[in-house]
Amino acid sequence: MNLQEAIKSFYAWQSKLSAYNHAMSAIFYDAATVAPKKTAANRAHALGILSEETYNLTTNAQTVEMLEFLDAHKDELGEKEQRMVYLACHGMNEMKKIPIDEYIAYQELLVEADDVWHRAKEDSDFELFRPVLEKIFEYNKKFARYCAPEKYPYDYWLDQYEKGLSMEKCDEFFATLKARIVPLIRKIGEAEQVDDSCIHGDFDEASQERFSLELMKIMGIDLGICGLGTTEHPFTTSIGSHHDVRITTHYQRDNFASSMFSVIHEGGHALYDMHSEDEFAYTNLDGGVSMGIHESQSRFYENLLGRSEAFVNYVFPKVCECFPQQMKGYTASDLYKAINLVTPSLIRTEADEVTYCLHVMVRYELEKRVMSGELEVKDLPLEWNRLYKEYLGVTVPNDREGVLQDSHWSGGSIGYFPSYALGSAYGAHLLHKMRESVDVEKCLADGNFEPVNEWNREHIWKYGCLKNPGDLLREALGEEFDPMCFIDYLERKYSKIYNI
Amino acid sequence: MNLQEAIKSFYAWQSKLSAYNHAMSAIFYDAATVAPKKTAANRAHALGILSEETYNLTTNAQTVEMLEFLDAHKDELGEKEQRMVYLACHGMNEMKKIPIDEYIAYQELLVEADDVWHRAKEDSDFELFRPVLEKIFEYNKKFARYCAPEKYPYDYWLDQYEKGLSMEKCDEFFATLKARIVPLIRKIGEAEQVDDSCIHGDFDEASQERFSLELMKIMGIDLGICGLGTTEHPFTTSIGSHHDVRITTHYQRDNFASSMFSVIHEGGHALYDMHSEDEFAYTNLDGGVSMGIHESQSRFYENLLGRSEAFVNYVFPKVCECFPQQMKGYTASDLYKAINLVTPSLIRTEADEVTYCLHVMVRYELEKRVMSGELEVKDLPLEWNRLYKEYLGVTVPNDREGVLQDSHWSGGSIGYFPSYALGSAYGAHLLHKMRESVDVEKCLADGNFEPVNEWNREHIWKYGCLKNPGDLLREALGEEFDPMCFIDYLERKYSKIYNI
Repeated sequence: MNLQEAIKSFYAWQSKLSAYNHAMSAIFYDAATVAPKKTAANRAHALGILSEETYNLTTNAQTVEMLEFLDAHKDELGEKEQRMVYLACHGMNEMKKIPIDEYIAYQELLVEADDVWHRAKEDSDFELFRPVLEKIFEYNKKFARYCAPEKYPYDYWLDQYEKGLSMEKCDEFFATLKARIVPLIRKIGEAEQVDDSCIHGDFDEASQERFSLELMKIMGIDLGICGLGTTEHPFTTSIGSHHDVRITTHYQRDNFASSMFSVIHEGGHALYDMHSEDEFAYTNLDGGVSMGIHESQSRFYENLLGRSEAFVNYVFPKVCECFPQQMKGYTASDLYKAINLVTPSLIRTEADEVTYCLHVMVRYELEKRVMSGELEVKDLPLEWNRLYKEYLGVTVPNDREGVLQDSHWSGGSIGYFPSYALGSAYGAHLLHKMRESVDVEKCLADGNFEPVNEWNREHIWKYGCLKNPGDLLREALGEEFDPMCFIDYLERKYSKIYNI
Repeated sequence: MNLQEAIKSFYAWQSKLSAYNHAMSAIFYDAATVAPKKTAANRAHALGILSEETYNLTTNAQTVEMLEFLDAHKDELGEKEQRMVYLACHGMNEMKKIPIDEYIAYQELLVEADDVWHRAKEDSDFELFRPVLEKIFEYNKKFARYCAPEKYPYDYWLDQYEKGLSMEKCDEFFATLKARIVPLIRKIGEAEQVDDSCIHGDFDEASQERFSLELMKIMGIDLGICGLGTTEHPFTTSIGSHHDVRITTHYQRDNFASSMFSVIHEGGHALYDMHSEDEFAYTNLDGGVSMGIHESQSRFYENLLGRSEAFVNYVFPKVCECFPQQMKGYTASDLYKAINLVTPSLIRTEADEVTYCLHVMVRYELEKRVMSGELEVKDLPLEWNRLYKEYLGVTVPNDREGVLQDSHWSGGSIGYFPSYALGSAYGAHLLHKMRESVDVEKCLADGNFEPVNEWNREHIWKYGCLKNPGDLLREALGEEFDPMCFIDYLERKYSKIYNI
């Protein structure tokens, strides 16, 4: 083997892997959006085989030989190929540690789990979901032990979603947030409450969909390569490369703001996914580098921009165009207050910015304890409800609005949730930095996202997975990340809204 | 290798192929229904690689060895495995004759062609479509020459869609139809015309969709494994096996009958696809055996049942429920006449039963001549328009309603169209036979499709690809197929409607 040939094979191998990913993403997207309800077993059959093919392609002797050869010659490679080889070797080494039978069985389990979770949520029946959730936690523990026996299993998974993250760091981060967010929530609770009646009413789905597409356009999302679907739980996925991205939302007939901010949130993910360097397509550098950075973008658009006064002033006439009857008598200021109402609530995806992190902390606490063996899956609903009472002061009326609300666990994502809180905080620091060179207020007031997008593209998006998330963030910020930016932002914004 | 092991490998191999088919069908279905418009190139990348994998899986040395071993031991196999081995060997032998580069290039071309055709149809711009259509015809000629150099290329393709079909048989079949259908059309033209105003009006898409789902339920289609989508051109596809089937329709705001009969037509395909023997799933016996038999089912439900007086009487109250304003003042008899209006028209999928075959004959004539080299692709629009004038007496105003109307050519299906006419005629003979044991009129009057479905299941559906289409049809009919049944049916039905 010579180096040129090895590099050529390496690109062909990545391209092939991307085709399998394309197929599996298309099947998953179809499953979540339009597939008939009783087709999960049929899907599991195909996905089981496709995962086996992917497993083999990642770990077979030819691949190992190619990757080891490239790794041995890494000093002769450019930055881009060096990183590709590093990521591919890392992926191969992890994959090889997981027995193929267990790997396939787990992929099939996830297809089943998605189906069972949907039904369990519909019927608010945790017992239906419990057996598959137990298996999912078991697999996550087992895989972590295979791949990193020296680590606590939960630390392994935290690090998977955000390189360098650990329980120790999370504990510290959440303690920092809690120390100032909990008093802020108390003060807000004692202040005069805002009226959010303008976002409630009867909003037909077709108008909400029209408004969603309008929002995507305002954000500068190219609808020619980004689709919009409807699902139980909103999400974003690429299909094969950054040349085809899909976001989904969930329409609530009685509250248009729910889908509005889901669309802006997922739109933030989509912008990130869609703007990797073109040459990264069909390689492992394509798309977002970590869930923390991903959420920094989604929550940036959703909250820092989407819930800002300047943006609400800009978008209010468009809201009125889509919902003329319902908006009668309301002003932009009413809408701004309504979408920034701070109140302890049940559903994470609809929580305000201030209480949001407490929702994440509940999940973090529970995952940590189940992964350590301290808590059993069967006791999750009770503990969930207890922590919601303790952290947020709310009583969970049923599991649908409690432990069954999110799709992450059924999707096998354990250790993902902290990314949301981290991402929110990254975003605030990034905005602080962006303001040095971009007049963000003016962009929002004009509904012109291009300068903001351009900054994100230059500092975050275009790099795809080229840099470690830590380096990427540090270089974008020009300094070490500091969660205080986020806390300061929250205190400043909400003190003004609540006159405290 | 021993026989038991070979059979086990053979099933595993079929299972793997079905997973690739699952992936490719899911990608195609997504492309036709919801994929963003500028994603064709991205899709072509993945489908190119997946077709290459499929090609290799079908033709690699291991497969050849396995299939040749099984073929050598075919006398020791049961009927089911014998047929599977026969079909697999046949498929492998054909595939091996096509150079892999050309095979992949053709698959990628079809992805591009689908995209180009959609745009060309939208703009009524044949010149945009012409270059890819030329390539498609060239590939079809070339592949036919590779696989069956002894045959005329068009004969090869006719035989692919309906085993045993040839230009000679088609010519004879169409001549038989023409001899009595053309005079029938003339007589109808001279009779007093029926009023079809009740199917025209303003029918919102949501109500039409609700009605479509109602129709599927009436037909006995399990919505848990059969989905409904919206596309430019209606079609049916299985995703991986008969456990997941999708039909699509196209809603016309000014005519609800268009989608109504598309849904019933595609529903007929779906019923056939969904009812292969359960044990055929993930093997090459799963699904319909030929396009002629497939169309015999779709056109059976669409016309013989769907456009019958008994069914219209049953369904009319449901039409009124979905479109109460629009149906005011009309009776079931008005609807029956409206949906059976015979009139030469432009669009095949919306043609009445009588003129329908003439639409097919136009396409057959053109394909035959392009495949023989007698006609060039660039001259297709002119010839299309000339034949529509000659056969149907209508003037084609533009290519959107002319040569660009169907999706078949962009999908690479050359030689498919005759199946529609054949299927219509098969269906009429099958109905004749079915009446010996099923009171079809009563079933339709009661909206109870179960006895009809049961007959089709027992005589057609359950066999999947187990029998040759010729044998399947002969055994179901208990005699040789006779197109006169179809012609008699048309004359009887339409003489009554038109009092001639």
